[in-house]
Order: sequence, then structure tokens, then C-alpha cells
Amino acid sequence: MLMSRLYAPTLKEDPGEAELASHRLLLRAGFIRKQAAGLYTYLPLAWRSLKKIEAIVRDEMDAAGAQELLMPIMVDAQLWHQSGRYDAYGPELMRVSDRHDREFVLGPTHEETVTDLVKDEISSYRQLPLNLYHIQDKFRDEMRPRFGLIRGREFIMKDGYSFDADQAGLEKSYHTMKDAYASVCERCGIRALPVVADSGQIGGDTSVEFMALADAGEAAIVFCPQCDYAADDEAASTTLPIVEGPASEDILRVATPGAGSIAEVTEFFGIPASATRKALALIDGDGRPAIAIIPGDRELNEVKAERVFGDYHLMNDEELEDAGLIKGFIGPVGLPEDLRLVCDESLHQSHYWICGANERDYHLTGVQPGRDFEPEMWADLSTVKADDPCPHCGHPLVGARGIEVSQVFQLGTKYSEAMGATFMDRDGRERPLVMGCYGIGISRTLAAAVEQHNDDQGIIWPVSIAPYEVALIPLDPHKEPCERAWKALFDELLEAGIETIVDDRDERPGVKFADNDLMGFPYQIILGKRGLAQGVVEVKDRRSGERVDVALDQAANYVAGLVRKARL
Amino acid sequence: MLMSRLYAPTLKEDPGEAELASHRLLLRAGFIRKQAAGLYTYLPLAWRSLKKIEAIVRDEMDAAGAQELLMPIMVDAQLWHQSGRYDAYGPELMRVSDRHDREFVLGPTHEETVTDLVKDEISSYRQLPLNLYHIQDKFRDEMRPRFGLIRGREFIMKDGYSFDADQAGLEKSYHTMKDAYASVCERCGIRALPVVADSGQIGGDTSVEFMALADAGEAAIVFCPQCDYAADDEAASTTLPIVEGPASEDILRVATPGAGSIAEVTEFFGIPASATRKALALIDGDGRPAIAIIPGDRELNEVKAERVFGDYHLMNDEELEDAGLIKGFIGPVGLPEDLRLVCDESLHQSHYWICGANERDYHLTGVQPGRDFEPEMWADLSTVKADDPCPHCGHPLVGARGIEVSQVFQLGTKYSEAMGATFMDRDGRERPLVMGCYGIGISRTLAAAVEQHNDDQGIIWPVSIAPYEVALIPLDPHKEPCERAWKALFDELLEAGIETIVDDRDERPGVKFADNDLMGFPYQIILGKRGLAQGVVEVKDRRSGERVDVALDQAANYVAGLVRKARL
Repeated sequence: MLMSRLYAPTLKEDPGEAELASHRLLLRAGFIRKQAAGLYTYLPLAWRSLKKIEAIVRDEMDAAGAQELLMPIMVDAQLWHQSGRYDAYGPELMRVSDRHDREFVLGPTHEETVTDLVKDEISSYRQLPLNLYHIQDKFRDEMRPRFGLIRGREFIMKDGYSFDADQAGLEKSYHTMKDAYASVCERCGIRALPVVADSGQIGGDTSVEFMALADAGEAAIVFCPQCDYAADDEAASTTLPIVEGPASEDILRVATPGAGSIAEVTEFFGIPASATRKALALIDGDGRPAIAIIPGDRELNEVKAERVFGDYHLMNDEELEDAGLIKGFIGPVGLPEDLRLVCDESLHQSHYWICGANERDYHLTGVQPGRDFEPEMWADLSTVKADDPCPHCGHPLVGARGIEVSQVFQLGTKYSEAMGATFMDRDGRERPLVMGCYGIGISRTLAAAVEQHNDDQGIIWPVSIAPYEVALIPLDPHKEPCERAWKALFDELLEAGIETIVDDRDERPGVKFADNDLMGFPYQIILGKRGLAQGVVEVKDRRSGERVDVALDQAANYVAGLVRKARL
Repeated sequence: MLMSRLYAPTLKEDPGEAELASHRLLLRAGFIRKQAAGLYTYLPLAWRSLKKIEAIVRDEMDAAGAQELLMPIMVDAQLWHQSGRYDAYGPELMRVSDRHDREFVLGPTHEETVTDLVKDEISSYRQLPLNLYHIQDKFRDEMRPRFGLIRGREFIMKDGYSFDADQAGLEKSYHTMKDAYASVCERCGIRALPVVADSGQIGGDTSVEFMALADAGEAAIVFCPQCDYAADDEAASTTLPIVEGPASEDILRVATPGAGSIAEVTEFFGIPASATRKALALIDGDGRPAIAIIPGDRELNEVKAERVFGDYHLMNDEELEDAGLIKGFIGPVGLPEDLRLVCDESLHQSHYWICGANERDYHLTGVQPGRDFEPEMWADLSTVKADDPCPHCGHPLVGARGIEVSQVFQLGTKYSEAMGATFMDRDGRERPLVMGCYGIGISRTLAAAVEQHNDDQGIIWPVSIAPYEVALIPLDPHKEPCERAWKALFDELLEAGIETIVDDRDERPGVKFADNDLMGFPYQIILGKRGLAQGVVEVKDRRSGERVDVALDQAANYVAGLVRKARL
């Protein structure tokens, strides 16, 4: 490719709207352009990289036995009503009506479509397992689209679905996919961590997200540097050391005038905050009042709380009064009837609690779960933090931020049961298909790669997904001997199967160097006047910045060798 | 690929809804499935063929200097308001609102998007020409989706757009694209005719459609077997021989009681219908009454008439009376004032007209255009038929039917002017970009190929777009020596780069033969018991039905040779 013909309009200045490096650099280097909020055009350079990511995904999927097809973007809303997602999904779902007022959704994922597709064709366990995937533009009507390709409203995604006869089969499919997903990240040059994740809107029990580590990532994660444990903070668990309140055989009622906050209680008793018990009053998704109790030094995790309480909210003053609760002095003993009580799993083995007395200006000490109260359930409710002990090995966890680039789910029978997708098992019994689903954000992977691979000069593409592997930079492209030299070199590189772009523009050397650094081609071959006079060119490694002089007649061979080594 | 693992559910019976061979066979052979009206899933076999069509398109486009990118499917409706298409496009345009009630369209084509994309980046003639394309799911809310992939509501299309500095540049880009489009058809195995076309909703002046000849085609076309003239009947022109009415110096008023139809006038005067003049009364798009006059033996062509009269309709009895017209006796002389009069171009040189007298039961003969009346304009209004003379060489035209698989347009400055996309020309003057646009129906090309390549047994894929080039059919796949033989052969074929599928199912030979014929793989290698005992396999050419015995150890080589020859 000749850069003089390439459609890659660069920007001299940083675009004001772009907070993230990937957003800023992809705009500046002429890789993407915004059409409207959350809607981007992938210009030729970005599109070349995206096709390489797609090719890597296809390669890994096909090797793992998955089959590619293409389902329509428009999905009959009836299918979403069958699964229950039409109402559950909320305003992020793009909905569209046809000329006959029939409703459709623009699929953000395709569980319904694929289940509907196979349900009349799969009748026997002999046809299983089956794994189908497609790569397609997806739609999600984000409240606040931002960060360029990281959180767009239309984005390219690979989504795949496995069908098995039983849970053991699903787990096999799931782990095969998980391995393939790890390979995809690695081959795209992404440093990613497989973290235990919440399964969100999709439903199902077990899932892992691949998080590309990046300071600018939206997701907070914790991981153990000792063992392989990693989780996002929506899902992370920990084994907290139990910190007890003062021991006593019986409950003691202590006047604590004005001590309505954890800090005040801590100070009053002269104990650490972790020895106190924080009670949060809320209204659960069914409108019922409820109390959640966690250690005094922890925060209630919204996602975990939603799993227990549904679409809950914290009580306001009026609701507290209606429920007969006294702000700052709530505790598990002597609660009004009909209140749900759920306590954090980490407190299950704690014997002596210090907590509100459900009476203004009083606390209780020596409260014993099991003897003095019994919660409806013990559940994981609190947010894990850096330095909490790893739930697997006890080593202090490390906090990090990440960009979710892909996710694997064990769906189970949620969709197959709702949509009547059954098969006959070995014993002639009708059973629902056991499903898994697997997604890779193709366009998000591109952005994540830029987040991980850039410097002050611009992007530094991993060779495997670089739009071109080599940039040939003749400083006098239309003068001899430079012109003859670059044309011969270009032919040699193409002949060797190296994807090469030539900066044949009549620009100053400084402009060429800056643009090629910005666009991030992994290797540059610079043909300068002085060098050519001595029969050498300069080969620059974009990542290390290293430059070496190479004989002109050896240059193609030399660079092709570097590229081939780096492709692996 | 092992057929036992392939997701390609075949149907035993013809699906009732499918009228066309392509629709029927693609459903039966397990290539596609319907999700909702006009919405199809491309199953793995179809998707493989579609990717090959896409690869051929990319190859031709890149060779022609076009650059691939990807624009979003969702287009800000503001852009469509700027171009005026938002209102003009009608109910076929899918419209969608986001959560903030901002309107978008699901792009059926992307003239607005691409013009908006380049308008701030192109400032000088030095950046021209530019040719950008993408391949993407497109949307058109058809009133009556039908014929499977031929007329769907979501379909895969390549659309491309060229930008030039002037008309000469556009014509060069246009002809380059036209040549590339002809190559795409040829390489996909499609017999297509480039026909002069009406430019419809897109606008612009000059365009050619590539019509895949097929009896089931929706489009009626005429072509000249002598020269290269071809046109669809919406656009075809002809040079009709002039047939005069009776000659006379002056107008004669002749009583023709009850002769209100062409047939009656013809009989009354004893002349051919072509010597009479048919007058059609209509209300034009602006609500004005108008008369169109064509030769008595021709039909008014709706598309041509719309070009002249806009969104017109023929007058009903009441409207005729309001306009002061007498049904069956309308003519160009003595028409009420304010009536528009447009006459068919073919009558321009005709001297003696026989036509209605605008008086009940009277006709006029010897009417002379120019002397007795002057139409507002002479325009091409009548439909061309088979056997009409070719407008280029006079040879009788031949009628045929076709499926439009692609189209090239000269758009001119319609969009660039409306959207302010200008550049500085060589002389420093600001000018609008001169645009062309170019579309290929990727999924429609797949269907057209099946329409042209099938027989009673099923599909016969052209090698270039076959999902697999060779089907290996072992009759005892899990018994020796058959198993060893097919596995070795399979390895050899893959090694040779031949795309091979193995029918490793435990099915009766008849079922295997029928399925493989139905799916249409170009070459079959049948490994039977008797043959293997003699060290031979049977190689079948799906198209000719020819079978030859080939030594087992020569078979891979032999078939690879056939495939390589047929790929070109």
C-alpha cells in the first residue's frame, strides 16, 4: 500500500473528547471516526487490524470444533418474550418495529435466536455436542456511550453458543472455550486475566471474564499474585479474618448516646471497625423491608446485594420510620417482624457481635448468632478490597483495573427450558439442552490492545494485529537513487509475504517519522540519502526504539526474519 | 470437515413456502433457515460460500484501488434529513429511536454516512480520486419479503463510493468499477448481463445493473444478441419505425361513432394499431392534469412515466369529467388549457397523426405536430418489448428475465451538494465532490448462483464459491479397509489445499448420494467395497454426472488437478 493513497486522515492535535489513550490515539492516527455518540467508522487501518483479530478468533474457534454461521441482527421480539428478556433487559435493548408494527430487537446477544434455530433440528443426544458462533455488529443503547470503542452503541462481537446433553458436557465445552479464549488474547498480544465474574443479564451460574489489564479499565478487579485466583469486584470473595466484639456470656445493653456511625461506635468501645457490625436497611425488589449486616469495616457490594435482594434500594428516612427502625442503631436482635434479615457469610462463625439495639442511643454486645437471632440466610454481601486475603491461598490480594474483552458463561437450561429446546437422551428421556455462551468483543479487543501498547509517540501494534507489519519510509520517494531502492525493497517484502506500507508522500522527514510512530507499524525501514550513499538503510523497532543499519540488499531478508519471528 | 459434526440439517421434503429453486434448495440442503419473514440465518455451508464471494469481491475491489473500511449500520437520521432521503425513501426504510428519542435509520445504503465521513477530511483535488467500500448487513423493510435470499429484509451487501474531482474522473472510476463488477460475476460463476438501468431512489444519471439471467428473475430485461446493448424494461429504449396515419394536407374530422378504443379505431380506419395514437389522461405528482401520447400499439411504461410526471395516477371518470376530457376520444388538438401534454419520443418525426378529436364519437386524421399542436416535451414513455429493434444496431431485441446482483451508479454531486462536501480544485475554486456508488448483493449473488446452477438432484456449486470443493464419500466409514483409505485420502487432499468434507455418517449409500448431490459439492470421491478391493475409487463430477474409476493412490492428485483447473 502507498500511504499517499491510504485513507487515514491524522489529527495534529489530541481530540478534546477523548479521555482514554486508545480513543485518543485511534482518532489521531486516522483509524476511526465518530459518526454519532457511540457509533464509529473503522477506517482502513483499523479495519485491517480488526480483520486480523477476527481471523485469530476464527482460527481458535474452528480448532476448538465450533462452527461459524451468521444469524440476522434483527430478532423477532416474540423470541425475547419467550425467554423473558424482552422486559428484563431494559432500555439498553434497541427495539424496532417494522411497517406492519411487528416488534424486533437489534440483538445485543443471540441466545434466543440460536436456541430457536436448533430446537427443531436437534432431537437426539447423538447430535451433541454442538458449538455455533458468529461475528457480527451488535447493539447496546448505552446511557452514556464513551471511551471510543470501549463502550460504544454498535460494536463488533463474536458470540458463540454450545449445546450439550448434560452438565459434564457443558463443563467440557466451557473449558475448551475458556482455553481458546485465553489463546485469542495471547495471540492478539493482550495481557489478560481470566477473572471470576458476575453473570449479569445473561443469567446462568458460572462465568469467567477475560480482563485486559489497563489503568484506564472500567472494571475493578482483584487477583492473587501467589495462586491463579482473580475476580472482578462484583464477584470476588475472600475469607475475612473474624474480628469479635467483647466476649460475654449474656447480651449486654450499653448506652451509646449519639454514637450512630461505625466510627463513633468504634471510638466509644475502643475496638477496630471490623469488630462492629454494620446494618443496612433496604427495600428489596419485591418491596419488602430488609436488613443486611456486614462487618463494620466493609462496604455493601451492590451486585452481590442485587443477587440476594433483587432490584433493591436503601431506605430513606420515611421508609425507616415506616419499618419501625431507628437510624444508626439497627441490629439483628428485636427487629420488627416481617423484616428480612441477611448476614454476610464472613460473620457466620463470629461469636460475639456488637451491634445496634434497635433502640435510640443503645448498642448490644455479646450478641450470638444462632442463640439470639437467626438470619434468613448467610450470603456473600461485602466488597473485596486489595490486601484482603485470597480465598484460595490466603495471600493478600492485589487490586487492578481491567477492560473486559471477553467472557465465557455456563448458561445451563435457562433458555432451552423457556423455549422448549429439548432432545432425547441415551435413555429415551426428553431433556432440555444444556447451554453455554461465549463472547469476544472484537472492536473492544482492538482498543484494549492500544491501551496496553502505546507510548508518547503513539500506538505500538503487536505484530499479529498490526494493520501493516512494516513501514517503508523513503525520505526522497521520488528521487533517485531513493525511488529505485524503495521500489525494489517493496517488491521484495511483498514477495516475502510481509504486509508493507510505503510512505511515498512528499512530506518532511519529521512529519513522516511522527506519523509512522503514531500509526504504530512494528518495524520501520528508513531510506535516507546518507545511508543509501553507503548502501545501507536504517531498521527501527517501534517498540524498543532500537535502530540498526542494514545493508540495502539484506534489508528485506532481515526485516522479514524479524516479522516472522514476531508473528508467532 | 466431518459431515457427522457439520451443522447442516437437511429436509426430506420440499418446503411449501419456497417458490424459487434457490430458496427451496438452500432450505432443503441445510444452507439457510428462516427466523422471521425476510430474515435468514446462514448456516455453516452457506456462510462458507458467502465468505468466498466476499473474498472475491475484496480481491477485485482492492485490485481496482478501492479501500475497505466499516461504517456503522445505525445512521443518524439528521444525515438523511440533510440529503432529503429521510422523507423520500418511504416505508422501506427501517427507522429506530434511541433511549433519548434521537432518530436513526438502519442504513439500506450509505451515501450520507460516507459523504459525512469524508467531507471534513478531503480538502484538495490532490486527495482524489478516493474509493471506499464496506461489506455489511443491510436493511430494507420490504412490503412482501419473499424468494428466500433474493428479497429479504436483512441482507449482506458490499457498497462502495467513489469521489472524484470532475465528471471525467467519475467516469473513469465508474468504468473501473463496472469492469471489476463484471469480473466478480464471472469469478462467482454467474452469467450476468450489464444492463442499462433506472437509478431509482439513489438518484443520479447513469447506471448499469448486472442481471444474473434466470427464468425466476423478478426483472424483465431486453438485450440485443447482435451488439452489446441490454437494458431492463424500466430503462430500455428502442428506435421504433414510424407508422403514419393516412396522409392529408389538412386535418380531417371523421365521425367514428362508438370507436373509443385502439382496437375499434384500428378496425374503423383499416390501419395497424401502430398508426394510431394512444392518449392517456393522468394527474401528475403535483396534482396537475396531463396527457401522455404514445403509439397505439405500445404500453405506457410506469417507471419512465414517473420520471416525467412524478408520482402520477391515471384519471378516473370523475377526474376526466373535471378536466373536460372525453374518454376514448382524447387527442392533442383542442385540449382544454392548462393541461400538460407530453408525447413519446418515437413519434417526434411522425407527420400524419390519427387521434381523438376531444369530441365524443369523432377522430381527427392528418394532424401534424408542430403545426397543429406543440407538446410540452418529447420523452421516452413506452415500454420496450422483445422483437423491438435494438436502439444501437436495429437487430430485434430478445426478452429475458434476470436477478439484479449488482449495480453501478454515477451519482454526480447530489449528495456532496446537499451535505456541503467540497474541495479545492486545481484552480483554487471550491467544488462539490463528484461521486459514484457501487453495490453488490453478496447474499443475493449466492441465491443467483443456485438459480443458475442446479438440477433435479440439487445444487451444483461453481468451484469458486462451493462450501467444500470435494466430498469424500466412504460407504463403510468405520470399517477397514475403507476407514484407512478415506483417512489417508482426506489427509492427502487437505495437504494439497483442497477443501474437503467427508461423509463419515453411518447412513445407507442412497442417503449419502442424495445428500451430497443435494448439497452440490463439485466433485465426489466414492469409496465402495468393490472398488477398494481392486484398489480404485470412483470420482464423480457433480455437474456432468460423469464417473471415472481412479486408482486409490492417484485419486488425491487427480481430483486436486480437477479442482485447481476449475478454480480459475
